[in-house]
Amino acid sequence: MKDEIILSGMQPTGQLHLGNYEGALKNWVNLQDDYEMYCCIVDWHSLTSDFDDTEGLKDRIIQMATDFLAAGLDPSKCAIFIQSEVKEHAELHLLFSMITPLSWLERVPSYKDKAKELGLDSYGFLGYPLLQAADILVYRADKVPVGKDQLPHIELTREVARRFNFLYGDTFPEPKALLTKFPVVPGIDGRKMSKSYENDIRIADSPEDTAKKLKKMFTDPEKLRRGDAGHPDICPVYALHKIYTPNHQEIVQPCESGELGCVDCKKRLTENINKTLEPIRQKRSELNNRQDYIMDMLKDGARRARKRASAVMEDVRKVMRIDW
Amino acid sequence: MKDEIILSGMQPTGQLHLGNYEGALKNWVNLQDDYEMYCCIVDWHSLTSDFDDTEGLKDRIIQMATDFLAAGLDPSKCAIFIQSEVKEHAELHLLFSMITPLSWLERVPSYKDKAKELGLDSYGFLGYPLLQAADILVYRADKVPVGKDQLPHIELTREVARRFNFLYGDTFPEPKALLTKFPVVPGIDGRKMSKSYENDIRIADSPEDTAKKLKKMFTDPEKLRRGDAGHPDICPVYALHKIYTPNHQEIVQPCESGELGCVDCKKRLTENINKTLEPIRQKRSELNNRQDYIMDMLKDGARRARKRASAVMEDVRKVMRIDW
Repeated sequence: MKDEIILSGMQPTGQLHLGNYEGALKNWVNLQDDYEMYCCIVDWHSLTSDFDDTEGLKDRIIQMATDFLAAGLDPSKCAIFIQSEVKEHAELHLLFSMITPLSWLERVPSYKDKAKELGLDSYGFLGYPLLQAADILVYRADKVPVGKDQLPHIELTREVARRFNFLYGDTFPEPKALLTKFPVVPGIDGRKMSKSYENDIRIADSPEDTAKKLKKMFTDPEKLRRGDAGHPDICPVYALHKIYTPNHQEIVQPCESGELGCVDCKKRLTENINKTLEPIRQKRSELNNRQDYIMDMLKDGARRARKRASAVMEDVRKVMRIDW
Repeated sequence: MKDEIILSGMQPTGQLHLGNYEGALKNWVNLQDDYEMYCCIVDWHSLTSDFDDTEGLKDRIIQMATDFLAAGLDPSKCAIFIQSEVKEHAELHLLFSMITPLSWLERVPSYKDKAKELGLDSYGFLGYPLLQAADILVYRADKVPVGKDQLPHIELTREVARRFNFLYGDTFPEPKALLTKFPVVPGIDGRKMSKSYENDIRIADSPEDTAKKLKKMFTDPEKLRRGDAGHPDICPVYALHKIYTPNHQEIVQPCESGELGCVDCKKRLTENINKTLEPIRQKRSELNNRQDYIMDMLKDGARRARKRASAVMEDVRKVMRIDW
């Protein structure tokens, strides 16, 4: 019997890249053994920015769920499901909206920046962190694995839980962020790996695609040819070596001396990335084109999620005295 | 077969007064024969202002539903139900939130005034008219019986329907307000009849209570005693005569001449109000203390409402391509 509950959520962006894998998914795979885990593919959240781009959403969900399983999430250990299949998220979000001051949402640091950056001004975009609070609390989750940028959202979740408990009596835990140290994963242009930058290497890429992408990868700009002295500490290729190359320290000296050229260095990285991903890609190829199986798995996950969420909502309605 | 759909909603304020009856309920009773009508007791809306006062909510709902039936709403003709029993309202509200600019909600005329007057600043209070839009459109209602103050909310509903149809294809009608001319119903202090002013006469009042309240009612301040000339056009008692006294014009001359004193005038009004309400009160006393019957009736109404709402939501998810 696992004591604690974890809620983890990810937007359905489609095929996952190494940044997603190293920054979140790999951690989830580790957590599923120790926690009762709910893995939520948050399609409603994706509507905050992509409400007019839903055509490929189903495929993006299936691709992502396929990566989940390939990476080792086990549907017999954790419930993997689509958010909108558990309507309780929407109900709790609505109830929370009644007790949450606008100012709490307006002051979430990411809000004004992102609103400007993405040109978003919808009511739902402002309410994004409140829907997240509902996602988490509808399972009475104790912990939420997140990156640092999500900390203010977890803090809001805790505030909402406190306010609810104050108004209606002890109902929710105050969930804690589960911050794990993740490596920096640069994309092939040296910026943060991101689908929207088109600089990503994906789990689903073939070994050949991976090689092709890495060939084009930015390196230390001062090392133009073999013989030039390199600076591994500022080289994005070396940042990936740190993740995928055992004894990567052994590269430092030959790079700095000029003995190791970038072409050979990238070849070595390619081999190591492909080797690491090999079993995941193998499993992925077995799962690929098995849409029905993936959808059935998600439906089953939703059933299990609903079971818990509906029990929590019964308690919520009871303490709020709106149980009819 | 009734062609058009009506959605009517009322906040669960408890026992209804003559203002509620003349301004809304009587009209609903007339409409149920010509339309497929959904009568929604909007408990979620009541949380926008009364989130911390839910203790008596169940009783308020039952009292109101009892008045509905006493006044002639027929559960075999229209579905009477509690909003929160039809979760589809919350789901559609969430989906609408993704496509509705904040500015549309901020500019609703009642918003800033009411926010200030009632000291409300919650996210849910700002979203009130959007929840109303969901209440209406989740039944694809063609018409909504409202007072003039609600017109901006209906206009917002039409805007949201248009935007949704533009983004995802024709899904919703643009509902029309069903404005009926209602008489002004003053309370016993001359202000608008309202529970919060404690100046109301209720359907549930006994004839004796009614008499007692009317005895204290404000009249033309210049007519202090019989013999003084009265001014029916500014007298709140005469405003009620206009509603409840057949041939009320016959009072005008004796009041103006001083021949008719206020005490007698009120007695006549009391008789006429009690006479009008007699059959309603009779039915009410039969229904009173039959909580289980009322709750069963509401549960049955919710089942019928859900049937329609869930079919509409299936279409909504389909056109939005989020049907899994």
